[in-house]
Amino acid sequence: MKPAVILIRPQLSENIGTTCRAMLNCDLTELRIVAPRENWLSDKAVAASSGADALLHSAQVFERTEDAIADLHRVYATTGRNRYMVKPVVTPRRAAEEIRAHAKDGLKCGVLFGPERTGLENDDVSLADTVVTVPLNPDYCSLNLAQCVLIVAYEWFQSGEPAEPVAMTKGAQPPASKKDLVGFFDHLRRELDDCGFFRVDDKRPTMMRNIRNMFERADLTVQEVRTLHGIVHELVTHRQRKAASPQD
Amino acid sequence: MKPAVILIRPQLSENIGTTCRAMLNCDLTELRIVAPRENWLSDKAVAASSGADALLHSAQVFERTEDAIADLHRVYATTGRNRYMVKPVVTPRRAAEEIRAHAKDGLKCGVLFGPERTGLENDDVSLADTVVTVPLNPDYCSLNLAQCVLIVAYEWFQSGEPAEPVAMTKGAQPPASKKDLVGFFDHLRRELDDCGFFRVDDKRPTMMRNIRNMFERADLTVQEVRTLHGIVHELVTHRQRKAASPQD
Repeated sequence: MKPAVILIRPQLSENIGTTCRAMLNCDLTELRIVAPRENWLSDKAVAASSGADALLHSAQVFERTEDAIADLHRVYATTGRNRYMVKPVVTPRRAAEEIRAHAKDGLKCGVLFGPERTGLENDDVSLADTVVTVPLNPDYCSLNLAQCVLIVAYEWFQSGEPAEPVAMTKGAQPPASKKDLVGFFDHLRRELDDCGFFRVDDKRPTMMRNIRNMFERADLTVQEVRTLHGIVHELVTHRQRKAASPQD
Repeated sequence: MKPAVILIRPQLSENIGTTCRAMLNCDLTELRIVAPRENWLSDKAVAASSGADALLHSAQVFERTEDAIADLHRVYATTGRNRYMVKPVVTPRRAAEEIRAHAKDGLKCGVLFGPERTGLENDDVSLADTVVTVPLNPDYCSLNLAQCVLIVAYEWFQSGEPAEPVAMTKGAQPPASKKDLVGFFDHLRRELDDCGFFRVDDKRPTMMRNIRNMFERADLTVQEVRTLHGIVHELVTHRQRKAASPQD
């Protein structure tokens, strides 16, 4: 059960459109609007939604906040400043976890967002169970409406099936095996011996180890090891060719 | 050491302005711009920055991505789609942790953001150590430039001193002590006894316990307990007054 996004008295229809975009980015689809000042289906709103205008068309519109939240079990109110009300104040991350937990219990949630300039009125906040405040730079914490919706929606989306924090993209390229790597190291050492790279014999094992570490760290693919063989081969061949015809 | 935000060939100066706003919201202050199409100090850009235009004025501008990242130790490239390059791909949350860790090691980081329509070119991505991809609704994952900057900057800010996930705001109102509560329960029980609320004497302890639980759960302040005393008192007095003058 996804939470509803509830815009209270939004001033600019363009911001309703950008809100839809932010919602759909994070797979939220239920928009409710209370007493919008402008037409939420204006050309500006549709253009600003960048293809997420299905949310504008399916939006439910209400006159009063009370009506917009009537079917909900838990309501969160986003505010940028302390309202000195006796209510829990949570981060968007915590709100997302709570909303997921409520959904498991069959409870439907909604999040209130206030008008652009002023934010929610205290009467709207008092209808909510919980206040949500985005932790931001205290010296510059005014968020644009769609940015605030984005952060709340983003945290909700992240709190679902978590994405792998790190993945490697290699496309169709299989990773090199240790055998591939050792083959390359052998090739390289042979050529380095041959060209006199290891001037001091004592340092040879350490230097070779450092070189090996460097390439090990690079997490190479089969194709990349092939490329490295080619590079060494070409460098050597060019040197030999140059030696064969010094006038070149 | 804060990471630099690096916009590569941004198309609209307005988006450079909204990027500054998103950066400053999250306490990022170092903007670099590579080959902007429009004047990054245009009136549109300044207006869109909503007071964060100091970042526009202090922005460094470069012709090539290579020059913009020359002094950095670790570079992250934001992309919306898989580029099939052999690079780690991380979430913004993970990138934020890495950037914090690099900063502790004295390493300066930067994050590349591509042009609005097309995103980063593969040549730019290949200059980066790591790709950052925001986990979003796979059916609708195109983020506006400033929204993408906001999410990366937001995660960086959250990865610093973590905010309390839950706090209670009570302003200057001290929480009620158990003595305050018990005093109220005594008052309420007295009046309920008096008005005949407990019709079945057997059920009286259970009913009283349920009523107590309800108020305990509400985590009341001293002032709120005072208000509850007042409510009970007024209800009773009105009843008594009515009883005294039934013609009323």
